[in-house]
Amino acid sequence: MAANGKRVGFLGPPGTYSEEVAKNLFGESACLTPFGSIDLAIRAVAGGEISQCVVPIENSVEGSVNVTLDTLAHEVELFISREIVMPIRHNLLAREVGRDIRLVLSHPQALAQCRRTLSRLYPAAELRPVDSTAEAARRVAEGEAGMAAIGSRSAAALYSLEMVAADIQDTSSNCTRFVTLQIQPLDSRLPGRWKTSIVCQIDGSRPGSLYHILAEFAEREVNLTKIESRPARTGLGAYLFFLDMEGGLGEARIQAVLQAVEQRSLWFKNLGSYLMLDWNR
Amino acid sequence: MAANGKRVGFLGPPGTYSEEVAKNLFGESACLTPFGSIDLAIRAVAGGEISQCVVPIENSVEGSVNVTLDTLAHEVELFISREIVMPIRHNLLAREVGRDIRLVLSHPQALAQCRRTLSRLYPAAELRPVDSTAEAARRVAEGEAGMAAIGSRSAAALYSLEMVAADIQDTSSNCTRFVTLQIQPLDSRLPGRWKTSIVCQIDGSRPGSLYHILAEFAEREVNLTKIESRPARTGLGAYLFFLDMEGGLGEARIQAVLQAVEQRSLWFKNLGSYLMLDWNR
Repeated sequence: MAANGKRVGFLGPPGTYSEEVAKNLFGESACLTPFGSIDLAIRAVAGGEISQCVVPIENSVEGSVNVTLDTLAHEVELFISREIVMPIRHNLLAREVGRDIRLVLSHPQALAQCRRTLSRLYPAAELRPVDSTAEAARRVAEGEAGMAAIGSRSAAALYSLEMVAADIQDTSSNCTRFVTLQIQPLDSRLPGRWKTSIVCQIDGSRPGSLYHILAEFAEREVNLTKIESRPARTGLGAYLFFLDMEGGLGEARIQAVLQAVEQRSLWFKNLGSYLMLDWNR
Repeated sequence: MAANGKRVGFLGPPGTYSEEVAKNLFGESACLTPFGSIDLAIRAVAGGEISQCVVPIENSVEGSVNVTLDTLAHEVELFISREIVMPIRHNLLAREVGRDIRLVLSHPQALAQCRRTLSRLYPAAELRPVDSTAEAARRVAEGEAGMAAIGSRSAAALYSLEMVAADIQDTSSNCTRFVTLQIQPLDSRLPGRWKTSIVCQIDGSRPGSLYHILAEFAEREVNLTKIESRPARTGLGAYLFFLDMEGGLGEARIQAVLQAVEQRSLWFKNLGSYLMLDWNR
């Protein structure tokens, strides 16, 4: 997939899972630019500095990435253009294979997701949290023997580390959903499997408001794949609802349900119709 | 309200907002015990080490406290017994009034919630994140002049600090919902305003499953005050739904709706009927 000659942002530093997704989507030769945080990457697209960005939006264990949802709802006017689900495969990376491991560095979530496996393989090893999986790999590359990092294949390649153990995550159901964001909505005539995401605020003071919204989907047999509430930021009890559905704006029933939901909402935002891509690695 | 002579846990260290809530609920003379994390406090109730705990469950800006929801759903069998909403009032605390402030310490969320006010009052001050608002107050008490902490009134009292400025939060709509948890459900004959919380997993592969659940509430005119999805932890697309409703198990319509929802769910858990208390300070 071409990046139209323009830069694509991702959640950095180099060696993160976000970079692996960006390479999977846009190819190894794409002009990829790391950003220090998710909202900086999103704002760079909104400001025209880059053409697209790749950000995580949901993890199967930790749940939604709130900063992604909140920034899309409150801060910028962007559209989701693609979605890809990456199986998270944690690897243990060290400078040499065969050494004892006394200290394991990684992002706190990655450490938590490998805790049982690590305590079986290296019961005496200390687990120490750092800012990112890539940062962990960098420190191990510069550190002394006996240190290891939990990280991606990209991080191993980037910092010339050996894979001491692959797939060390405790559960096999750990995957993360990433999306690409851009200023223009995707051309809805493209072939493929489509999804659409919207966010709306409904009148919480009227009983059954959400029920009436969901009825619009049920009547048209539009399948909702996700419903998530987030604070409207106007006080407790006021919520925004993020709704994901199967189908794209190229279909009349999706156009109809979006119009009906908008009429029932205090506030409504179309986050775009987008293609579901398969992870191929 | 008596704590039945047994200990009440809260999210520590001493001087946090959780402690202020615990004092408000159980009185200054209650035997309050700080815990290092939310899940440790909750597990101490489940293990019988303490009789109740006070933990945050939702903030009007940041959203649900995921660790509280996930621990209640997945890890323990406990009931919510009381709910109280605390207006979060951030104060600037220092050793002396009238000195220039060059460094402000606090929990990252508190710093974020006061950023605009601080940049107006002390444009040159550096903001530095620490583990908790109470930890910030402790460091200011032991540190040099020119340092300040964002924290609660309790923290000011505990560390003998002066209130340099009160109510420095950027928005007035910032409040946090706290709940008390205990092993036995609350006696549903108690007078007062009741709410009930449940968590259920529905069959996401059948379109309209959530719609049919919500219909059970709409038919009985039971008002939902909150609906929140969290990962079921069995893979992407499988969710638990946390539902809060007005009314308690003392009412026949609440008993009926819970029974109907349980029958429609793959998995169901009653998190308890509880009293809504007013914040009185």
